[in-house]
Amino acid sequence: MKSRYIVIEGLEGAGKTTAIKTVVQTLATVGITEIDFTREPGGTPLAEKLRQLIKHGIAEEKVTDKAELLMLYAARIQLIENVIKPALAKGRWVIGDRHDLSSQAYQGGGRGLSPELMKVLRNTILDDFRPDLTLYLDIEPALGLQRARDRGELDRIEKESLDFFKRTRQRYLELAAEDDTIITIDANQSLEEVQKTIHHVLSNWLTAQGE
Amino acid sequence: MKSRYIVIEGLEGAGKTTAIKTVVQTLATVGITEIDFTREPGGTPLAEKLRQLIKHGIAEEKVTDKAELLMLYAARIQLIENVIKPALAKGRWVIGDRHDLSSQAYQGGGRGLSPELMKVLRNTILDDFRPDLTLYLDIEPALGLQRARDRGELDRIEKESLDFFKRTRQRYLELAAEDDTIITIDANQSLEEVQKTIHHVLSNWLTAQGE
Repeated sequence: MKSRYIVIEGLEGAGKTTAIKTVVQTLATVGITEIDFTREPGGTPLAEKLRQLIKHGIAEEKVTDKAELLMLYAARIQLIENVIKPALAKGRWVIGDRHDLSSQAYQGGGRGLSPELMKVLRNTILDDFRPDLTLYLDIEPALGLQRARDRGELDRIEKESLDFFKRTRQRYLELAAEDDTIITIDANQSLEEVQKTIHHVLSNWLTAQGE
Repeated sequence: MKSRYIVIEGLEGAGKTTAIKTVVQTLATVGITEIDFTREPGGTPLAEKLRQLIKHGIAEEKVTDKAELLMLYAARIQLIENVIKPALAKGRWVIGDRHDLSSQAYQGGGRGLSPELMKVLRNTILDDFRPDLTLYLDIEPALGLQRARDRGELDRIEKESLDFFKRTRQRYLELAAEDDTIITIDANQSLEEVQKTIHHVLSNWLTAQGE
């Protein structure tokens, strides 16, 4: 089967790390074991430098919403061109911890950047590169944030208000509803239920792909 | 007189540093001495971090043309919002060593990035923020590069081919021809002639502004 790019998306505390493990296990059941892993922002030396600037800012300088978005796209195009495309070309599968949908949801929804800017950046910077499948882990923002806080210190973006995350979730749901390569998973369920759902959904998708 | 933002533009070796001194001297003749200086990319802590990544890259990773452009705009919007606009609002004049015209010429002309992308980024990221006056120092690329090389080590962009700088100059000239806030100065002349021309051109402009 042709290699594919699968992305896991969702708010902080939605359970992305566990979901990635479930995806790996499910792929193994059909013999897919040549997998590379990415995370965004980051995944190349330059993109990781940008990740630091995006997540922690610098000194007392205010990071403008636009600069944040531009750095995210700079990191993303480096990752796509230098890591994801070469891996897919070599026949390896790629599992991504976040991709463009995060920018659409967090910066477009949460920060409220203009739909025109969001659309134009996606189209002009990424051209027609898209994940083959995105699993969006949908969680109540308050529950997700509680889980994230329990894990430890929050970064610059994770410190945003609950309203910010509500707007972000809203945009995730809107975009998932209009794109049939995005499957929404109810991540408010127990961990076991979420894992079962992911396994079920992914197995069906693989079958539909002819695997 | 209302404070203004004046930008000096041109290829490497065109004589921007000397030109800035001449601009300062000319402003002083009409009593303008409250001046802030910027350079691009850079000029804020975050923008200076981006400057390092843009000018020197990182390890052996190829910096894509798009990532370079996005980092330039991230640095630019930080500088505009955190430095230039606040200075102008306080009544200070600002003299910039490069601004958006450099991206239009180097990335749009030299690198050949699509006119649509260049236009869209300028319009959506900068909105309607523009310099009041740009002095474009026009120089033969071979002559400018020779001067730049005589000064010492070249950075990642300065190491581009002569053809790259010819395309960059061509775009500078095209854009200067269609924008009456850009004045082209022949920088192939002797240093004294260039200084005289700048003084003359700027004095006329100030008079026209009502100074």
